[in-house]
Amino acid sequence: MNIQVVKNVLEESEQLARENHALLSAKRIFFVNMMSSPGSGKTTLLAKTIPLLHSQQIRSAVIAGDITTTLDSERLQPLGVQVVQANTAPFGGDCHIGPHLVRAALDLLDLDKVDLLFVENVGNLVCPAEFNLGEDRKVVVLSLPEGEDKPLKYPLMFRVCDLCLVNKIDLAPHLQVDAELFSRNIRSVNGGIGVLPVSGLSGEGVAVWTKWLMEQRRMVIS
Amino acid sequence: MNIQVVKNVLEESEQLARENHALLSAKRIFFVNMMSSPGSGKTTLLAKTIPLLHSQQIRSAVIAGDITTTLDSERLQPLGVQVVQANTAPFGGDCHIGPHLVRAALDLLDLDKVDLLFVENVGNLVCPAEFNLGEDRKVVVLSLPEGEDKPLKYPLMFRVCDLCLVNKIDLAPHLQVDAELFSRNIRSVNGGIGVLPVSGLSGEGVAVWTKWLMEQRRMVIS
Repeated sequence: MNIQVVKNVLEESEQLARENHALLSAKRIFFVNMMSSPGSGKTTLLAKTIPLLHSQQIRSAVIAGDITTTLDSERLQPLGVQVVQANTAPFGGDCHIGPHLVRAALDLLDLDKVDLLFVENVGNLVCPAEFNLGEDRKVVVLSLPEGEDKPLKYPLMFRVCDLCLVNKIDLAPHLQVDAELFSRNIRSVNGGIGVLPVSGLSGEGVAVWTKWLMEQRRMVIS
Repeated sequence: MNIQVVKNVLEESEQLARENHALLSAKRIFFVNMMSSPGSGKTTLLAKTIPLLHSQQIRSAVIAGDITTTLDSERLQPLGVQVVQANTAPFGGDCHIGPHLVRAALDLLDLDKVDLLFVENVGNLVCPAEFNLGEDRKVVVLSLPEGEDKPLKYPLMFRVCDLCLVNKIDLAPHLQVDAELFSRNIRSVNGGIGVLPVSGLSGEGVAVWTKWLMEQRRMVIS
């Protein structure tokens, strides 16, 4: 009986994700779900990415997911981008963004002025990997200080993602992290995943990442 | 009906935690639950802490929690310490260590040769905060590169903990992190929490942290 309840919840979640995808697809909006540990640098990276996309006529919007606070949306708003803060605290402090929260956030956005929607998921390498939101692409941001063993320890996250951004590479000279082993570990979990080194601080690699977004968008939105 | 099921599960969890505590207390073992984001440096820190404790006649044991892999226990075993790897993958990939896993791990340890038991929880700032294991103290490790906003974004973790170790302070010169704001944010969430800066890499602050452990242990184990 209880298993049936769980199964229904998961099915409802998948159904909501499909509806989100249909809605955004009809509006020609490319939807990217960004996931990571807490403090991997997603917001800093987006703050560098969004203006670059804008210079190429791609208008972004962000659903900033957190358990609580509006810190991330406050950081992104000065970019003149549409931002919705999606807090999970009213939903029991959920450790991930669910498709229902995305749906609620979409109602607060002017979708006719959006070409690319980012979800900044709650910082967590475990639970967000288990829930589809209706996204076109899943991206995991892994910062170099987190160490080269993380893909092996949190394999599901790296398996479900299309791209891994290795962030904070500006810190490489100060860390005892083996960058080659880092990439090898990522690929050992998912042979097909893209790996791009970036620095949200210095901006290194952000142009390549933006190019990836533009290319992926063209594949999906024809 | 479904709410009743959840309530029973939580009660059973609390009961198991109490049993763990009673068992360890009877053996005069001080029990510390270490929690953090992935890659905050718990294992490196323990590898520096355990020999220092040993030099003061405190024999440690570690339950290394992860979803999968035995990487952490492999790193700790050379220290000659008792280590049990507790993987949650067989339990559905749980994003935290539960008291049942601690109980199972205790059966694999020779508790007559242990004075201090560490649980290295699964890397996650959300879910592990919600489950008591029967520990005497909860410690959160937050690494400087994760940024000063984390206590505000993950308040429950900082509320339930007795001590926050601010790790990787060796990286401070290379980061744009405001260390004072960091501490202020931690204390704004929990006015009573201890805050200790440490570096698992350089060993800075590890003596103070070890002293804290010895003092807390004396308070509990008379």
